[in-house]
Amino acid sequence: MTRDIAELTDDALDKALLSQAALPEDLEDLALGDDYALNPEYVEMVIDAADSGNTERLRELVGALEPADVADLMGFLSSAYREEVIPLLDPEALGEIISEMDENLREEILEATPSVTLARALEELDTDDAADVIDDLDDTKRYQVLAAMGEIDRAAIETTLSYEDETAGRLMQREFLAAPEFWTAGHTIDHVREAGDSLPELFFDVYVVDPTYKPVGAIPISLLLRSRRETRLADLMEAVTEIQVEMDQEEVAYIFDKYHLISAPVVDSGGRLVGQITVDDIVEVIREEAEADILALAGVSDAGRDATVIDIVRARLPWLLLNLVTASIAVSGVAVFQDQIAQLVALAILMPIVSSLGGNAGTQSLAVAVRALASKELTTANARRIVLREVSVGLVNGLCLALVMGGATYLVFGPEDQHGKLAIIVGLALVTNIFTAAVGGILAPLALEKMGRDPAVSSSIFVTFLTDFTGFFAVLLIAALLLN
Amino acid sequence: MTRDIAELTDDALDKALLSQAALPEDLEDLALGDDYALNPEYVEMVIDAADSGNTERLRELVGALEPADVADLMGFLSSAYREEVIPLLDPEALGEIISEMDENLREEILEATPSVTLARALEELDTDDAADVIDDLDDTKRYQVLAAMGEIDRAAIETTLSYEDETAGRLMQREFLAAPEFWTAGHTIDHVREAGDSLPELFFDVYVVDPTYKPVGAIPISLLLRSRRETRLADLMEAVTEIQVEMDQEEVAYIFDKYHLISAPVVDSGGRLVGQITVDDIVEVIREEAEADILALAGVSDAGRDATVIDIVRARLPWLLLNLVTASIAVSGVAVFQDQIAQLVALAILMPIVSSLGGNAGTQSLAVAVRALASKELTTANARRIVLREVSVGLVNGLCLALVMGGATYLVFGPEDQHGKLAIIVGLALVTNIFTAAVGGILAPLALEKMGRDPAVSSSIFVTFLTDFTGFFAVLLIAALLLN
Repeated sequence: MTRDIAELTDDALDKALLSQAALPEDLEDLALGDDYALNPEYVEMVIDAADSGNTERLRELVGALEPADVADLMGFLSSAYREEVIPLLDPEALGEIISEMDENLREEILEATPSVTLARALEELDTDDAADVIDDLDDTKRYQVLAAMGEIDRAAIETTLSYEDETAGRLMQREFLAAPEFWTAGHTIDHVREAGDSLPELFFDVYVVDPTYKPVGAIPISLLLRSRRETRLADLMEAVTEIQVEMDQEEVAYIFDKYHLISAPVVDSGGRLVGQITVDDIVEVIREEAEADILALAGVSDAGRDATVIDIVRARLPWLLLNLVTASIAVSGVAVFQDQIAQLVALAILMPIVSSLGGNAGTQSLAVAVRALASKELTTANARRIVLREVSVGLVNGLCLALVMGGATYLVFGPEDQHGKLAIIVGLALVTNIFTAAVGGILAPLALEKMGRDPAVSSSIFVTFLTDFTGFFAVLLIAALLLN
Repeated sequence: MTRDIAELTDDALDKALLSQAALPEDLEDLALGDDYALNPEYVEMVIDAADSGNTERLRELVGALEPADVADLMGFLSSAYREEVIPLLDPEALGEIISEMDENLREEILEATPSVTLARALEELDTDDAADVIDDLDDTKRYQVLAAMGEIDRAAIETTLSYEDETAGRLMQREFLAAPEFWTAGHTIDHVREAGDSLPELFFDVYVVDPTYKPVGAIPISLLLRSRRETRLADLMEAVTEIQVEMDQEEVAYIFDKYHLISAPVVDSGGRLVGQITVDDIVEVIREEAEADILALAGVSDAGRDATVIDIVRARLPWLLLNLVTASIAVSGVAVFQDQIAQLVALAILMPIVSSLGGNAGTQSLAVAVRALASKELTTANARRIVLREVSVGLVNGLCLALVMGGATYLVFGPEDQHGKLAIIVGLALVTNIFTAAVGGILAPLALEKMGRDPAVSSSIFVTFLTDFTGFFAVLLIAALLLN
């Protein structure tokens, strides 16, 4: 405890001294900055407690944190420190901590934890979260952990795992509150009080079902709470938005976002209620899908916060090699025009500008298209209008840039420029390339979407190739035509 | 109804015929595809009803839709059709429809709607949504609409508008359920039943407050519902995560995501409860912030689905012009090396590849850094380690690419290549540029974040400039050193 105090600021020092005998809430205040991120000083305190072998202090520091913050803390520690912290974790919180962890870390912790401990920890989680963790185990361990679990939990998890990854079936919990139409509000509330453990820990809607267990309506529990006890559920219920169990998670997220849902019933192919999805899982999906789009547009898969250098190289190098191939193809044609370039080196200077501007215009159009596709603002119903609009934008932007750059070329290269021919070459090439960029940037993702592929992945490689190629060729071809 | 039927597929035709006398639910089934996006056929049906002057049919078609779908529909119609539809909208749903609309459309509809109608429509909304719409009105109309509203609603909206845009104060509703610690579960439920209209339409937590109205805990209403009536709130309540009223909405979203919150109490600078934020508003924030990052990285501001060509040109041209300037600066140095290029045109072919690969490597590193900053995986606590890791990744990727491209250069340019010098030039230049890209791609957003700026905006322009510049200069400088 000496080293970290010396490094703390005065303010933090006061707090740290105070916290020596402090309640967990005070420690939590110290742990998190105003922005709810872990304080670097707190991480230092944990490291010092571990260094000095003060297990009691370490347990206290870690125990004061919420599961999500413990997961964060683990990410800031090196693996030697993590090994000291893991045995100190509250077994009840362990499941949640594991489910909050970054994938690389999770694997390490899962390996280090005995199967029986894991089984107990996972039983505390909702089925969807537990299944997620189980899915990350190797076959032997998965078998051991499932065998160590209670019958009911095991069956629930095995059913969840039988659905494909990234579908509603994987996101849903199998615990929910359903009631028949003829029940009254009062009867339903009494039922909830008696049912106890068979209900999920948190729920937000009562699903009203018909005798064949098909959902016919939903009632927010805040409405149930404020209704007179004798009101029948049939008179309270509102229309319900059902989710098909095989639906892709991106679709599910779209529906939650569009209709501002807090929870929704999941139905099987026969329309029968089999589970519910709650909005907290959807928040994660929306963030993950948006992140996936950002990374895909940048041509990189994320290796995670705790990835090694080799993990990251594996995630990035293949895209760069692909880019090397496409750039080489785009440039190879330039060799044909070696004479032009040797004659007029200005071409070598202007070519990269034309292709760089094309690349950026293509990325703009692509990013807007990918976003519009994800939010279904761009659909088959308006694709024609939106493509035509991109075409016009490409022409207008191309003309404006051509005027500016043509003018600049004329001024800069003055005498070298054969009666403004260079300015004309550059201007025409720019219009061509910006136009190509705008059209390619919208058609590539549209085509991928139509083929049922992810429009973000590989669109950007294609569009970059297109604008590189067009950039070089437009300049050199127009030069060949005008200069001889 | 004739034209659109001719254009429908057989399946849709059956449905359409069926729907002639159909219940609204059947119409809704017809309106939405399996993916819950509006069917193009349904839009056609609306257009045909408008064309044939069949107001009753039009009213029926529009009335069958949820507010979010009406907002979508408006986006698919041209403004002449919109003007026919607006007067048919249910006044009770009008507020919600307006608040779901794209900004460009919303302005048009707001202008076309009388102030008194607007005032009534907005009174139906939660304060945060109503304030959002009011904020879009011009000064005169805002004054008129506010004057036409009830005293209480007006005061609530004016208070909300007094908070800065994109803060917790703007997101929160001023309606919530608070109760003192000494109340019992039963008493609280009875209070809810009696309180009626002063409560929000939907709520998910009871906030437990001390006598000074500071939140001391929260109770999910599903827990309240299952507790015994005589249990005191003090014994039920859990720790509460408070949101400061001036907190930036991105921070609020981070907290909701991290702790899986459904609702959270908002407190003023004195720590007193002033409102609540619910997760449905946060879903929108998360999506919007992620979209803003995608667009910022691509150097484009989104003009919205219903933007005109001029709107879009305005959103994109400035970035392209800036890019023209930076690219020109990067390339201008090439002029100094005109003799080298004239001597060895291969340089002009290889330079763009080196700078294109650098640009892509920089974008990769940038996208990962922006994502990690947004999710607070990259903080001051681990910045040093992450930067060092990027440095290693840059070196490894650079060396791999240098080997591949150097080898290819040696094979392709064989005789022209002066004893492999060209291969060495390209290889060295690539290592330099990929390294620069990796380091610039992480340092630029880190520096912007530290200065309190948005790391996504302007990072990409800077990194592209850096790698363009380095790409050209590395090739030409190394060539100048090795070839003479």
